[in-house]
Amino acid sequence: MTTESQHRLSFAHFCKLADGQTYNPETVVKHLQEFQVAIPSWALGAGATRFGRFSIGGEPSSLEQKIEDVALVNKLTQCANSISLHIPWDIPEDATAIQQFAGEQGLHFDSVNSNTFQDHKNQKHSYKFGSLSHSDPRVRQQAIEHNEQVIEIGEALGAKVLTVWLADGSSFPGQSSFKRSLEHTQESLKAIYKCLPEDGKMLIEYKPFEPSFYSMVIPDWGTSLALANACGSNAFSLVDLGHHLPNTNIEQIVATLQWQKKLGGFHFNDSKFADDDLTVGSMKPYQLFLIFNELVGSIQDENSISWMIDASHNLKDPLEDLMQSLQNIQVALAKALLIDQRALKEAQENNDVSMCQQILQNAFETDVRPLVAEARLRSGGVLDPISEYRSLEIRRQLIEARGAHTVASGL
Amino acid sequence: MTTESQHRLSFAHFCKLADGQTYNPETVVKHLQEFQVAIPSWALGAGATRFGRFSIGGEPSSLEQKIEDVALVNKLTQCANSISLHIPWDIPEDATAIQQFAGEQGLHFDSVNSNTFQDHKNQKHSYKFGSLSHSDPRVRQQAIEHNEQVIEIGEALGAKVLTVWLADGSSFPGQSSFKRSLEHTQESLKAIYKCLPEDGKMLIEYKPFEPSFYSMVIPDWGTSLALANACGSNAFSLVDLGHHLPNTNIEQIVATLQWQKKLGGFHFNDSKFADDDLTVGSMKPYQLFLIFNELVGSIQDENSISWMIDASHNLKDPLEDLMQSLQNIQVALAKALLIDQRALKEAQENNDVSMCQQILQNAFETDVRPLVAEARLRSGGVLDPISEYRSLEIRRQLIEARGAHTVASGL
Amino acid sequence: MTTESQHRLSFAHFCKLADGQTYNPETVVKHLQEFQVAIPSWALGAGATRFGRFSIGGEPSSLEQKIEDVALVNKLTQCANSISLHIPWDIPEDATAIQQFAGEQGLHFDSVNSNTFQDHKNQKHSYKFGSLSHSDPRVRQQAIEHNEQVIEIGEALGAKVLTVWLADGSSFPGQSSFKRSLEHTQESLKAIYKCLPEDGKMLIEYKPFEPSFYSMVIPDWGTSLALANACGSNAFSLVDLGHHLPNTNIEQIVATLQWQKKLGGFHFNDSKFADDDLTVGSMKPYQLFLIFNELVGSIQDENSISWMIDASHNLKDPLEDLMQSLQNIQVALAKALLIDQRALKEAQENNDVSMCQQILQNAFETDVRPLVAEARLRSGGVLDPISEYRSLEIRRQLIEARGAHTVASGL
Amino acid sequence: MTTESQHRLSFAHFCKLADGQTYNPETVVKHLQEFQVAIPSWALGAGATRFGRFSIGGEPSSLEQKIEDVALVNKLTQCANSISLHIPWDIPEDATAIQQFAGEQGLHFDSVNSNTFQDHKNQKHSYKFGSLSHSDPRVRQQAIEHNEQVIEIGEALGAKVLTVWLADGSSFPGQSSFKRSLEHTQESLKAIYKCLPEDGKMLIEYKPFEPSFYSMVIPDWGTSLALANACGSNAFSLVDLGHHLPNTNIEQIVATLQWQKKLGGFHFNDSKFADDDLTVGSMKPYQLFLIFNELVGSIQDENSISWMIDASHNLKDPLEDLMQSLQNIQVALAKALLIDQRALKEAQENNDVSMCQQILQNAFETDVRPLVAEARLRSGGVLDPISEYRSLEIRRQLIEARGAHTVASGL
Repeated sequence: MTTESQHRLSFAHFCKLADGQTYNPETVVKHLQEFQVAIPSWALGAGATRFGRFSIGGEPSSLEQKIEDVALVNKLTQCANSISLHIPWDIPEDATAIQQFAGEQGLHFDSVNSNTFQDHKNQKHSYKFGSLSHSDPRVRQQAIEHNEQVIEIGEALGAKVLTVWLADGSSFPGQSSFKRSLEHTQESLKAIYKCLPEDGKMLIEYKPFEPSFYSMVIPDWGTSLALANACGSNAFSLVDLGHHLPNTNIEQIVATLQWQKKLGGFHFNDSKFADDDLTVGSMKPYQLFLIFNELVGSIQDENSISWMIDASHNLKDPLEDLMQSLQNIQVALAKALLIDQRALKEAQENNDVSMCQQILQNAFETDVRPLVAEARLRSGGVLDPISEYRSLEIRRQLIEARGAHTVASGL
Repeated sequence: MTTESQHRLSFAHFCKLADGQTYNPETVVKHLQEFQVAIPSWALGAGATRFGRFSIGGEPSSLEQKIEDVALVNKLTQCANSISLHIPWDIPEDATAIQQFAGEQGLHFDSVNSNTFQDHKNQKHSYKFGSLSHSDPRVRQQAIEHNEQVIEIGEALGAKVLTVWLADGSSFPGQSSFKRSLEHTQESLKAIYKCLPEDGKMLIEYKPFEPSFYSMVIPDWGTSLALANACGSNAFSLVDLGHHLPNTNIEQIVATLQWQKKLGGFHFNDSKFADDDLTVGSMKPYQLFLIFNELVGSIQDENSISWMIDASHNLKDPLEDLMQSLQNIQVALAKALLIDQRALKEAQENNDVSMCQQILQNAFETDVRPLVAEARLRSGGVLDPISEYRSLEIRRQLIEARGAHTVASGL
Repeated sequence: MTTESQHRLSFAHFCKLADGQTYNPETVVKHLQEFQVAIPSWALGAGATRFGRFSIGGEPSSLEQKIEDVALVNKLTQCANSISLHIPWDIPEDATAIQQFAGEQGLHFDSVNSNTFQDHKNQKHSYKFGSLSHSDPRVRQQAIEHNEQVIEIGEALGAKVLTVWLADGSSFPGQSSFKRSLEHTQESLKAIYKCLPEDGKMLIEYKPFEPSFYSMVIPDWGTSLALANACGSNAFSLVDLGHHLPNTNIEQIVATLQWQKKLGGFHFNDSKFADDDLTVGSMKPYQLFLIFNELVGSIQDENSISWMIDASHNLKDPLEDLMQSLQNIQVALAKALLIDQRALKEAQENNDVSMCQQILQNAFETDVRPLVAEARLRSGGVLDPISEYRSLEIRRQLIEARGAHTVASGL
Repeated sequence: MTTESQHRLSFAHFCKLADGQTYNPETVVKHLQEFQVAIPSWALGAGATRFGRFSIGGEPSSLEQKIEDVALVNKLTQCANSISLHIPWDIPEDATAIQQFAGEQGLHFDSVNSNTFQDHKNQKHSYKFGSLSHSDPRVRQQAIEHNEQVIEIGEALGAKVLTVWLADGSSFPGQSSFKRSLEHTQESLKAIYKCLPEDGKMLIEYKPFEPSFYSMVIPDWGTSLALANACGSNAFSLVDLGHHLPNTNIEQIVATLQWQKKLGGFHFNDSKFADDDLTVGSMKPYQLFLIFNELVGSIQDENSISWMIDASHNLKDPLEDLMQSLQNIQVALAKALLIDQRALKEAQENNDVSMCQQILQNAFETDVRPLVAEARLRSGGVLDPISEYRSLEIRRQLIEARGAHTVASGL
C-alpha cells in the first residue's frame, strides 16, 4: 500500500521527469478528473454462470440501495457519477423522487437498457425464439413497445440514450432465416428509433454468440453499423469488449467505427475466452491501452460516447471489482494520454516500425498510478479506494443492514 | 418422411451396391444394434444459459419420471438402454426398488457423476473457490467424501464407473497457484480412487474454461492423463466433445488417448463456439465421423468405453433432441464402419493423399440411413422415432400428466 | 470405384425415391450442368508454406500450359470452363492469340487479379509497407496504376471483373494509423473504380491476418462493404472461405452481404486453422452445404456471382486436388438444391427447431453423387475424373513433357 | 529518450520507494545481469511469409557474420551471450575455429536445432510426407541420422542440448494414421535419445499447426510430455510461445510442465493469430509477465532451462527487433521479481481474489526500466541500445560491407 507521502514523492518525481516530454502531467490529471464511467444497476450483486451462483451477502435489493452502492463507489473513486438502468429489473416507481435521490448523492442517470432476452412477468408472448427479429409480428410488436417504454422511463429520469442488446439468434443451422431475421430486426429498430426524443440516441450492441450458439442476429460491428445506418443519424454502434470472436482486433473496430462516425457507446470488461465479463484490465491491459489510444481523440474533443462498465462479479465483492475496473480504466487512459502522437504519426509516415512500437511501449511502461491517484485526490476521492473500503468494513456493514442472502436483480 | 416400403427399397438397393464393397451391410447393422449410449438424468428437462431458462412443459420431477422418459426414448430408438445419474440431483431413496423399476423398463444404470460445482443444501463448506483443489483441506475432504458417497450409490445401483468433472479453477491471473492446485487435485483424486470397487473405474473429465474464466484445474487431455496415470490402471480420461479450445483436433486426442490406453469415456454433444451442448452431429457431422473412425476399432473389439450424450436442451423438446442425437451418432458410426480400412492403410503408407481423402469421403457421402433404420427396426424400434413421437402426441400427454411448469433438476 | 452400371442403378434408384419429394432430379442435374467454377492460373503448380515447397513435377511454366491444364480438368469434369489470371504472374504477351487459344479449348477468361503484395521486377517503389493504403502517395499511385493495367489486360481478354485482394496491414500495434490507412485505401479504390469499363465490376476481398500479423487494412466483410459502398454500385464484396477468424459463421456473412446486395464473388477452399487453402469440402463439408443453402437462390435466379477455387496444393497433385474440389462443390450444391425450402420456411416461421434441423440434415444425408455423375456424363465429362486421370497416367506424361523440376508461378 | 542523468534520478527514486517493499532492487538488478538468452543463427536476416520476403540489406551470409551480429547485440545489451545453431543452415566447417571465434566475442554455443522439414541438397529421401514419423522406415532412419549428426556438431561446439521441432503431420483427414505416426515418432526419438552425450539433453517442441493444416504429430504439450517420458530423464518439453491454439493459457502449461519436472526449454516470441513470430512482448506483455511469474522460481534456483528468442523479422531491422525483444524479456522478468510471493500465497490461500489480482498488477504497473537499464550499464552495456545502434549507423555500415541484397539462410 502506498502512503500519502510516497504518493507525493512519486507524483513529484513524475512531474520532474515530464519536463522534457510532450505531455503535461497537469493536463493528464485534468482529463482523468473529467472522465466518468457509468455503473449499471445490475452490477452490484453476485453474478452467475449457468452452473450456479454463489451469494456474497449484503447485495442491494432495491433501486435505492443500488444507487447508494454506486454513490459509495463514486465517493471513493470520483469517476463513476452515473448509473445505467436495466428495464424491467429496475423500473423506478417514482421517477422524480428517484432522480432527486440520485442527485443528492451526486449521481445522474446514464443510458437505459431494454431486456427482451427473458420473459417478464405477465408478458403475453414469449421471447424464447426471439423478440425484434421474431417470425411472429405480435412478438416483434411487444418487443418494440417494451423498448418504447424504456425510452419513456429514460426520459423521465433525464437519460436520453437507449441501449439495445438483442439476444435474438439461432442455436442450430436452419433454425431461422438470416435474411428475414435481419429484415424484421431492421424494421423493428426503425420503429423504436422513431420514438426517440429529438436529442435522444439509440446504441446498437453486437455479439457473436451466447445465448444463441449458432448465430446471433447482430453478430458483429458490420451488422450493427448497417442497422444504425438504416435507422438514421442518431443511431450508433456500441462496442462491448467481450463481444468478439477469438483474436479479433478490437481497437481496429473502434477506429473503423470512428471513421464511419458511428461509435456511440462502450461497455468495459475483460475476457480470455468468451463473454467472460471480468474486471476491466485484469486480462489484457495492453489491449485496453491500445483501445484508449484510438479513443483518446474523442475523449479530448468532446465526451459524446457513453462509457459504461459491464462486468459480472462471480467471485469478488462487486464493489471492489468495480473499483479495480475503474482504476484500470484510468490507468489505460492516462497512459494513452502520454503517447507522443506527433512522433507516432511521424514514425508511421516513415514506416519506422521499431520506433512506432517504442513510442507506444514507452507510454505503456510508464507508471501512471501517481497521476491517477492525484486526480482522485483532487476530486475529493481517497488515495487507495479498496484499502479504504476494507478498513471501513463496508461489506460487513452492508451484510448487517441488508442480510446475508439478499439477491440483487440481474444475471 | 420415409415410408416402410421406401425403406425396404433403399435397404435392398444398399445391399445390392454393397456387393463389390469391403463391408457387409449385415455386419454393420449388427454393430449398430449393439452400440448403446447412456442418457444422463439431467438431460430430460429444459436447459438454461446464464441469461435465463424457458420451460418446455411436462418435465420430469422425480427420478422415476426421468427413467420413464429414457425408457420411452429407448423404446423408440433401441439404442439408449441405460441412464447415468447425477448426484445429488438424483439420489435414489431406495436403490433396490429403483434398480428394479429401471430393469422393468429395459434399462440399467451406467456411470455415476459427482457434483462439486454447486453448493448442496446443508453443506458445511462452500465450493465457491473450488473443491478437490481447494486451498482448505476441510473443503477438499468434504468433496472427497461426496465422491465416495457417489461411488457407493453407484455400487448399490450396479454402476461401477465414477465420472469426475471438476469445475475448479480461477477467473483471474494470480487467483490460485497452478502447481498447488494440481498437487491438491492429485492427492484428492488418489483418495477417491482408493474407494473404487476392485472392478470399478474413475473417469477424469477435462475442460478449458467455464465456469472458470482464466484457468481450469484440469483444462486439457494432457492434465487429465497425468492425473489418471498418477491414480492407477483403473483411472482413465473422458472426452467431452464440447470441452476444447477453438480449432482443436479432437479426433487426434481420441487417438492419442487410445495410444496411451487411457480413453475411458465419451460425452457426445456438438458446438460451434464453446461448450454449447448442442444436439450431437448438428454442427460438425464430419468431425463426428472422423472421431468414430478412430473409435471404430475399440467398438468392434470390446465395448469398454462409457458412451453418454451430454447436451443441453434450451430450445428443443429434450426427447426429440435426444432422438436426433442418437440418430446422428448411429449415422456417424455406420459411416465409419463402411471405411475400407485396408485400402486406407495402404494409401497412408504410400502417402497417396488424394486417395486417403477419397476413401474417407466415399464412406461419408454414402447414405447410411437405411442401415440405421434397419438396425432400429430389427431391435424392435420404430422406423422414424420423431414422427412416431409426434403422432403419438407424447409431449402433450406429459404436460397433461405432469403440468406445464415443472422443472427438472439440472442446469 | 463406381462402375457405369452401378451409376445407372443408383441414379435410377435416386429418381424412384424422388417421387414423393419436392425436388426434381432432372432439374437438379440441369443446375449442376450449368454451374461453372473458375480455376486460377496460380493453382496449377505446387504451393508452399513459409517453411518450404516440395515440387511435384510437370508443373506448367507458361500461360499456355496453364490453360492446357485447366482445359484438361474441364474436359474431365465439365464444370470449370474459365480461367482467372493473376497479374503480373501471368501477363499474356498477345491477348488476342491467348484468348483464341483458350477458346479453342472451351475456356474463357474470368475475373483478373491484381498483386500488390510482392515487389515486381523493375518496380520503382516497394510494397513492403503497403500499397493502396501506403503512407506515401507515390506508392499508392503506383499500386493504382498497376490495378488499372490489370483492368486493361482483363478487358483485352474479355474479363470484366477485377478482384482486389489487399495484403496491406501492420504487424505491430502502432505501426500504422487505422484511420489514415482506411482513408488512403478508400481514395485509392475509388480511383481504380473509375477505370472500370461501364459493365465492369470490382470485387473487394477481406482477410483478418496473414501476411500482416496485427491488422489487415480490410480485415472483415464490414470494412469491405463500407469500401464497396463508397466506390459505387459496381463494387462488391468477395468472400474467401479461408479469410475468417476462428468460429466465424460464414454462411451468415454470405446471407448478410446478399441482404445488402453486395455479394459479388466467392473463393472456394477449406481450412481448419487459418487460411490453410485446402481442397474445398475436405474439412467442413457441412459448412459448405450451409453456405450453398444461402447461395442457392442466387444460383437459380441469375449467375452474377464470380465463383472461383482458391486453394494451394502443397501435397497433392494440383489437378487431382482441383477435381476433388469441383466434386465437393457440386455435391454441396446438389444437396442444397434438395432442400425443401417451403417446408423449411414453414418450420422456421413456427419455430419448430427440430424440424428445421431435420429438413437440412435430410438433404445433407442424401447421397447425391449419382446426380453429380449424371450431370458430368451428360455434359460430356467422365464418370470418375480422378480414376480416368490416373489410368491415363497424365502426370507422368506432363513430367516427361515439361520436366520434373519446373516451377509454376504463384505462391 | 532517457538521458543518463534521468536514469540516475529514476533509479534512485525506485530504490527510495523500494524501502518498504519486499524486494531489494539490488537483487533484482543482479538477477537481470545473470539472465541470458540465446539468439538463433537464423534470426539475423529478413524473415518471410509464404507471400514473399522483403530484403533488408546487410544480412549476414556466413556463420562468422552471424556470430558478429549476435556479438554486437550482446555488446550493447549484455544479455545475449550465446548463439543457437540451425543445422544444416549453419554447419561450421571448422568447429574448433568457430568456437574460438565466438569465444573471442564473448559468446558460446547454446542448443543445436535439427531440420527435417525441408529437403537438403543431395538428400536421398524427401521429407515431403514426414521425417521421424514417416511411413517409410528408410526416411525415418535418414532423419534419425540427421539428428545424430546435429548432436555431434553440437558436441564439437560445446553445445549439449538438442532441440527437435518436428514439422511432421497431415493436411487432410485420413492422410495418416495418428497412432502409427505417434509410434514411429516415439521409436525415432528414442533412437536419437540414445545418441545424446551422458550430460546431454533433448528438448521436444510441440505445435498445433503449420506447416501441416490438419494435424501435427506433436501438436501439444501433452504429446510432447508423453514422448519425453518415453525417452528418459534427459528428455524435456520445450515451450514456444507461438505454438498454441487461440486462447490457450500458456502460463498454466509452463506451471504444469514444471509440476511434471519436464520443462526444458523456451522459445520467446509474440503473436496475435498464429505462429506470427513477432517481437517478444510486443502484443501480450501481461501474458509474458504471467509466464515469468511461473518461471521466476526456476530462474532464481538454477538456470537449467534453455532460453532462446525465436522470432521472424519481416519488417524491422533484425538487430533492432532482437534488442526490443531482449528489453521486453528483461522488463517482464524484473516485474515478476517484484511480486510479493509471500503475500500472494497468503491471498491465494484465503481466496482473496481482489487482493491476488492487486498484488500481480502492482508489480506489473511498476516502471522497471530503471532496473533493466542499471543492470545493462553495470554489465558494460549501453543505456539505450537501439539509440546507440542508430546513432552509430550500424545498418548502413553492414550494407556497405555486405551488400544490399545478401540473403541470410533461414525461413
